[in-house]
Amino acid sequence: MMELVLLRHGESRWNRENRFTGWEDVALSEQGIAEATSAGSLLVKQGYAFDIVYTSVLKRAIKTTWLVLEHMDLQWVPVMKSWRLNERHYGALQGRDKKETVRVHGDEQVHRWRRGYSERPPSLTPDDGRWPGNDERYRHLYIDLIPCAESLEDTVQRLIPYWHEMIVPDLQRGRRVLVSAHGNSLRALVSYLEDLPVEDILNLEIPTAVPLIYKLDDALLPRDSFYLKKDGSSGDAAEK
Amino acid sequence: MMELVLLRHGESRWNRENRFTGWEDVALSEQGIAEATSAGSLLVKQGYAFDIVYTSVLKRAIKTTWLVLEHMDLQWVPVMKSWRLNERHYGALQGRDKKETVRVHGDEQVHRWRRGYSERPPSLTPDDGRWPGNDERYRHLYIDLIPCAESLEDTVQRLIPYWHEMIVPDLQRGRRVLVSAHGNSLRALVSYLEDLPVEDILNLEIPTAVPLIYKLDDALLPRDSFYLKKDGSSGDAAEK
Repeated sequence: MMELVLLRHGESRWNRENRFTGWEDVALSEQGIAEATSAGSLLVKQGYAFDIVYTSVLKRAIKTTWLVLEHMDLQWVPVMKSWRLNERHYGALQGRDKKETVRVHGDEQVHRWRRGYSERPPSLTPDDGRWPGNDERYRHLYIDLIPCAESLEDTVQRLIPYWHEMIVPDLQRGRRVLVSAHGNSLRALVSYLEDLPVEDILNLEIPTAVPLIYKLDDALLPRDSFYLKKDGSSGDAAEK
Repeated sequence: MMELVLLRHGESRWNRENRFTGWEDVALSEQGIAEATSAGSLLVKQGYAFDIVYTSVLKRAIKTTWLVLEHMDLQWVPVMKSWRLNERHYGALQGRDKKETVRVHGDEQVHRWRRGYSERPPSLTPDDGRWPGNDERYRHLYIDLIPCAESLEDTVQRLIPYWHEMIVPDLQRGRRVLVSAHGNSLRALVSYLEDLPVEDILNLEIPTAVPLIYKLDDALLPRDSFYLKKDGSSGDAAEK
């Protein structure tokens, strides 16, 4: 049985301000720092350790990783950073206030953008300062890989090759893996692992900084999954 | 011309307590945290940026790296951690008070252990709790690679293969490289790069958290080197 731990970053400043974030590189809030710290303490108290961590190239996930490793006294563990674990790209909605967006586009449309599987938010254009091709960290990417907006399905498409090429071989070697990422990149991974029907994906929400433990069999099928809770109880999959 | 930045970690708790540290995994002191932060601010203010960072598997160098990257807003930059960049292993002296050691072994002997090139401090034995083979992070190493005590020459021997295999190819590709390491692992690298005679190595001391810039030609020969100073001046090689 292989064990995988998923962790969504602590609250970011824009989570707090209720703005669409996506690939915008927003720092953790003070509360987010506290959440990440407490996730690290919880993991170490429950006897978890890691041989490798995979994270995105966004500072809210990286800082969460650093805080977790620091509080587990595992600073030396290798950390791999990839854009393929980034949050879903929110296109032209990035930076926009969520309530304001509801006022302009209507509740139903915004819900489809936020929770739908194949619905893409309005696109950025490459001349927009927010377009990732203007950011140094993505300059090595083939231009067709750089998104202007992503549906959750798009996020699954760009994440799963990384899962199979990088993460699965580590799990198969018996390594204890932490994936420290984002609400929607983890929804993408969970929906893929669980082979969830679209209507279940709509209701899937992963809370910030609560470790989600997966036990996978040799065929990478989930045999068990639960959230690690502070009080020692473990929330089951139904809570997702 | 290739550019390389070397950085010794900020003050550790044992630097402060005047104890031999070596491979003991000691955290930065409060002053060390402040030093690392200010190195990051200085680098960004002077227009430096990095494409990759190489560091050790010891938390004082890793935390220094994290603080520097955070203050440069470069959290996404890849960080490679290797035992080959660790501090020199101080053998049975690790954890011992430096003054007490002078009292027991005499000033001259301790000076030879600290500053000599080929002099090895007294060895640990593998049944010692301090022997690195008892530490999870070194368990993948072939046992003959795990030191019981190192001279600076030993440190050069285990560092230089990593320099050539990992760091040099990045420099040759034009990448901006930071090596974030330790007093003696950086002395080892500098003495190798500069091809210093043993008597000059004795006097080489690298201050904590002051970026040391090297310009190397295509044959990896140093053409210029200077310390980056807060007041905008740059100390030249003579200060080393």
